[in-house]
Amino acid sequence: MNYQNILVETQDAIGTLTLNSPKTFNALSRNMIGEIIAALEDFASTDSVKVLIVKSSAKHFCSGHNLSEMIDGSLSEYKFIFEQCTRMMTLVHEIPQTVIAQVHGVATAAGCQLVATCDLAIADTTAKFGTPGVRIGLFCTTPMVALSRAVGRKRALEMLLTGRLISAEEAENYGLVNRVVSEEALESTCMDMAKAIAEASPLVLRLGKRAFYDQIELDEPRAYDYATNLITLNLMAEDAQNGIKAFLEKRKPVWTGR
Amino acid sequence: MNYQNILVETQDAIGTLTLNSPKTFNALSRNMIGEIIAALEDFASTDSVKVLIVKSSAKHFCSGHNLSEMIDGSLSEYKFIFEQCTRMMTLVHEIPQTVIAQVHGVATAAGCQLVATCDLAIADTTAKFGTPGVRIGLFCTTPMVALSRAVGRKRALEMLLTGRLISAEEAENYGLVNRVVSEEALESTCMDMAKAIAEASPLVLRLGKRAFYDQIELDEPRAYDYATNLITLNLMAEDAQNGIKAFLEKRKPVWTGR
Amino acid sequence: MNYQNILVETQDAIGTLTLNSPKTFNALSRNMIGEIIAALEDFASTDSVKVLIVKSSAKHFCSGHNLSEMIDGSLSEYKFIFEQCTRMMTLVHEIPQTVIAQVHGVATAAGCQLVATCDLAIADTTAKFGTPGVRIGLFCTTPMVALSRAVGRKRALEMLLTGRLISAEEAENYGLVNRVVSEEALESTCMDMAKAIAEASPLVLRLGKRAFYDQIELDEPRAYDYATNLITLNLMAEDAQNGIKAFLEKRKPVWTGR
Repeated sequence: MNYQNILVETQDAIGTLTLNSPKTFNALSRNMIGEIIAALEDFASTDSVKVLIVKSSAKHFCSGHNLSEMIDGSLSEYKFIFEQCTRMMTLVHEIPQTVIAQVHGVATAAGCQLVATCDLAIADTTAKFGTPGVRIGLFCTTPMVALSRAVGRKRALEMLLTGRLISAEEAENYGLVNRVVSEEALESTCMDMAKAIAEASPLVLRLGKRAFYDQIELDEPRAYDYATNLITLNLMAEDAQNGIKAFLEKRKPVWTGR
Repeated sequence: MNYQNILVETQDAIGTLTLNSPKTFNALSRNMIGEIIAALEDFASTDSVKVLIVKSSAKHFCSGHNLSEMIDGSLSEYKFIFEQCTRMMTLVHEIPQTVIAQVHGVATAAGCQLVATCDLAIADTTAKFGTPGVRIGLFCTTPMVALSRAVGRKRALEMLLTGRLISAEEAENYGLVNRVVSEEALESTCMDMAKAIAEASPLVLRLGKRAFYDQIELDEPRAYDYATNLITLNLMAEDAQNGIKAFLEKRKPVWTGR
Repeated sequence: MNYQNILVETQDAIGTLTLNSPKTFNALSRNMIGEIIAALEDFASTDSVKVLIVKSSAKHFCSGHNLSEMIDGSLSEYKFIFEQCTRMMTLVHEIPQTVIAQVHGVATAAGCQLVATCDLAIADTTAKFGTPGVRIGLFCTTPMVALSRAVGRKRALEMLLTGRLISAEEAENYGLVNRVVSEEALESTCMDMAKAIAEASPLVLRLGKRAFYDQIELDEPRAYDYATNLITLNLMAEDAQNGIKAFLEKRKPVWTGR
């Protein structure tokens, strides 16, 4: 497809989605959101891709919504933007690929939400994260949904109520990102993690990601009912039987995806 | 109002509620709880106050319930005390003001619960936190509700089952407080944070705090429905339109509270 | 009772359950799971035991399920294994004793789940934790239920999707274990914690543990209703009245268990 605001590439089992609007600090304009949704839906139907890296071509990761689209509009225009944005975030959880955020520079508001929403996140030391909407009269209410589920209450409330940007190191301590590395190591660390994940069975990666977001919403007894049934079915699959036998026989498994 | 156990002050947009019963280590007696409830309800109806700092005039922050009121009483007397205490904690979440705990010295049992319940908390290096009721035959069951939602399972269980006091540094690592500063810096750090928050629109602070506690109880799809609707309405508000325009024009916003 | 795969001891108020199948790295075979269930049910009905330490006689804590029982089986055989394993994990929460995991060496898959499920956990510096099932075609779906509730989303997802083993220090930072100590100090640290807990009233320990797992599944208003009622009843108990009076009179309490 032809995109104006993003770049999409695929190499073997690893896809890359690059936010590519440096002039707007990768603001999530209506057009960019629409293109990200289209790209995510496209990846969702591409069985050969197991991992998706979301990164930025610009000095910053993503500055959140495009504020010039947020003045003098109508309720229905605004509603459309936020519903599309929520659709985009929801898709990040729904697609079968493991999604890794590769964060360089600032990720604010819906940009911070995007990092919180990705399954995994690696940041370099330039990264900063924040939800500063409160300071311009628009509370980061949708980013809060992802942020408060990633970092805990007091830390989320401080970010939301003060608008303070936190450092990459704080983000790692809070659990918002998995790891902080040097600028030089960012690309290769993400790629190494993607490759390690891509060694697994596509069936099992797909099933596992879906199960994570399904069970996390349930109380513990219902989560165990769900998980006990699912792991039993997983064990009946060809890939599980082949994988366990390969492990017991100390050889590399071959996946059929069944 | 005339209070015996607390001090209440207001300076511009920042209120202060000082626990003031040094002789009892600020034990939450029936009377003190009643006065705190009255003061919180009073703040709730004072639109000009945006932030409330809760602190102590004594060597310690708060030692929890007044144990002398907890012996040889009746079921209905005890029930009244705990229901009032829960009412007080609930009010901390319900009032529109951002509530910051300023913690010097020990905060135990319902005192620890109060810190866990406040939206934000700053401690100095003298602060210690604990839920030692287990050691005197009264499990900290109500404090547990706030504590376990602030610090995670294993950490909460250790505090609850062993009664161990944790240090200020541990409390910061656990996410029970936002920051630890020196004794000398405690007052000014809290005041600086309060002033930074108070620069925001009162409408947006109120709406954002309420939304935080509403959405945190919902599963993610329902939280996003709620949040998407709310942020759309927020963007229609005068303060959002003015705030965004001021930001785009690089000038300071003026809030109307609408 | 006569067990083949575990050792069970009781000294005063402290029980010990030792996984004892060094040749299989303490794999959770059907037989071992059955024996652990029997031992937990036995402890559950032994009022004199207040704390249970779960440890290993081997070089490693527990390597998860016995993979040789997971090939060429039937759906009903697999279902039985996972249902029994879930029953075992659920029992760890249901028994009245506080359960402490004493972790030396590797704890993977259902072994990592067991650590995450125990009320408390102490590890030594040799400990490592992981959920590597993804790499052999069997996603750690049941371990995920306990893990994701202990360590937060991004950290759980990394462990589950990459299979990476985390160090003892990382486990402490993530909240998966309460503390890391030297190999030499592991046994005594666990025993000291067990003894400290065992000083409390058995009634209060039992009531408190049950309340923790009950309230953590409720939204905050319902959790407070539950907790307010329970703490009121707790305060009417003989052990609470005796404990508070002893504290006020600066003497050691005597527990009746009522």
